[in-house]
Amino acid sequence: MSKDKVAGNLLIIGGNEDKKGKCKILKRFVEMAGGRDARIAVLTTATEFPHEVGNEYRSLFLEIGAEAATVIYIDDRDTANDKNKARNILDSTGVFITGGDQLRLTSILGGSESDAAIRQAYLSGTVIAGTSAGASVMSDTMIVGGDSSDTPKKSHLGMAHGMGLLQEVVIDQHFAQRGRINRILAAVAQNPLIIGVGIDEDTAIVVSPDEKFEVIGSQTVTIADGRNIIYSNISESKPSDPLALTNVILHVLPEGYGYDLKRRMTYICGE
Amino acid sequence: MSKDKVAGNLLIIGGNEDKKGKCKILKRFVEMAGGRDARIAVLTTATEFPHEVGNEYRSLFLEIGAEAATVIYIDDRDTANDKNKARNILDSTGVFITGGDQLRLTSILGGSESDAAIRQAYLSGTVIAGTSAGASVMSDTMIVGGDSSDTPKKSHLGMAHGMGLLQEVVIDQHFAQRGRINRILAAVAQNPLIIGVGIDEDTAIVVSPDEKFEVIGSQTVTIADGRNIIYSNISESKPSDPLALTNVILHVLPEGYGYDLKRRMTYICGE
Repeated sequence: MSKDKVAGNLLIIGGNEDKKGKCKILKRFVEMAGGRDARIAVLTTATEFPHEVGNEYRSLFLEIGAEAATVIYIDDRDTANDKNKARNILDSTGVFITGGDQLRLTSILGGSESDAAIRQAYLSGTVIAGTSAGASVMSDTMIVGGDSSDTPKKSHLGMAHGMGLLQEVVIDQHFAQRGRINRILAAVAQNPLIIGVGIDEDTAIVVSPDEKFEVIGSQTVTIADGRNIIYSNISESKPSDPLALTNVILHVLPEGYGYDLKRRMTYICGE
Repeated sequence: MSKDKVAGNLLIIGGNEDKKGKCKILKRFVEMAGGRDARIAVLTTATEFPHEVGNEYRSLFLEIGAEAATVIYIDDRDTANDKNKARNILDSTGVFITGGDQLRLTSILGGSESDAAIRQAYLSGTVIAGTSAGASVMSDTMIVGGDSSDTPKKSHLGMAHGMGLLQEVVIDQHFAQRGRINRILAAVAQNPLIIGVGIDEDTAIVVSPDEKFEVIGSQTVTIADGRNIIYSNISESKPSDPLALTNVILHVLPEGYGYDLKRRMTYICGE
C-alpha cells in the first residue's frame, strides 16, 4: 500500500483493552471516528465467537457515544465478497477488527471485496482499529506463531502475509504479558529494515498518516530497531540454534511518548 | 572489590545447567579449576536441600574428573564464621555456589570468615562459579525479586547488596525461560552505568580478569547497555507506573560470542 496516498489513521491495540472501567482506548477510537457522528463497523472474522464478541463491542461503542455501530459477520470467503458487506464497511467512519486468529482474518478476507473496502476506507480517511489478532494483521508481514518465553531462535517464528496497512513494521501483541521479546527480535534479525513493535495488553498505538505513532493505555510499547545490527547468525543458523544478534536499539514507551517510524526516533508527546 | 587486584575467573551460570548429557558447563568449570588437579568446594548455603544438592554436585564433579570435591555445609552465621570452613574454601581451586535463594546466601555469609575466604580465594586465582541464585550474588547490587513477564515497572524490582565479585553489572538468571527482560531493563534504567546481563538456563558466562566474558552453553545471554538512554521516567514515576526508557542497546549472544564489559562491545571468540 503506497504511503503517499494514505489519509486514514490506525489504532493498533495489544489486546485485552479495558471494557469495564474508563475504556480509554475504545473511547479514543470512537473520538477518532467522529465522536457523536461516529458510525462503527465491527469486524468479527478473527473470532470463533462472532456473536458474543460482536454484540459486546457494539453495545460498548453505542454506550461510549457512537452514533451507530454495526457488526459485520464474515465467516467465509463467499460472504467476504458480498457487496453489501463491502458497502457497510465503506459507509463507516471507523472499522474495528476484533481479536481471534490472524490467519482466519487474512485467509477469509484476503483479496475479497471486503478486504478492498477496508483499504479504500482507510485511504479515504476512515479509522482502522484492531486488537490482538486484529493488531497483528496491520503489517505487510505478520507473526502468526512462535513460542514465547524462550531463548530467541529462528524456529520460533511463523510469518505470513498480513493486510499491509502499515509497511516496514512487525506488530506483536499481548507483548510483556506473554513474554514475546524473542519473537520481535527474531523478526528484526530476519530483516533489520523492519521495526519491531511489541504492544502490551490494554495499550495501543495511534498511527497518523505521517507515520508517527503515539502510545496510549495503561502499559507499554516496546520498539526494537535493528538498523545498527552488526552480528547476526539468522541466515546461517539451524532453526533450533539460538540466535546471535548485536546492537539492537530498544525503547520502552508508556502513554505520553511517541515514535517516528520514518526517522526511527522517540519523542515526548506535546513537546 | 578493586578490579586491579583480581586474578581469578568467574563462571556465572543461568541455572538448570546440563547434568546428564555432555555436562559442558560443569566440565568447563572443572577444567578452569585445574582439570585432574581440581579441588572443588561446593557451597550449598543458598538451597534448603543442602545434602541432596551437595551430594549431586560432588558426585558429578568427581565423575567429570576433578581430583577432589567437598561439600561445605553452611546454614547459619555461626558456621559461616567457622575457621575450618574458611580453610576448606581457601584450600580449593574452584568454589561452586549452588542455586536456591540469593538472600539466604548473602544474609548467612555476608561479612563472615567464609565470605572473606571466598574473596581471598578469588583474588589469588581460584575460580568462583555460581548457578541461579549463585549467579545473581556475583554482582555488587543484585536482583532479589520482581515479577516476570509483565510490563517493565519500577515496582518489579527488589534489589539488595550482592557479594560484589563483579562490579557495574547486574545479573539475572533463568532469563528467557522466565521472561525477565523487564527486570533487567528496570535495573539498567535505575543506573545506566550498570550493564544488564540476562543469562538463560544451561548457559554461562566465563569472566576473565580483564573484564571480558565469553558465552558457553546451549542458550543465549542478553545484554542491556543503557549508556545511550535518552529518556527515562524511573525517578519521577510511581512504583506501579509503566517504565519509559529509550535507546537501550540490546545484544543476544550464543556460545562463540563474547562481550567486553569495559569497552561495552561484543566480539566473536577467536577472531
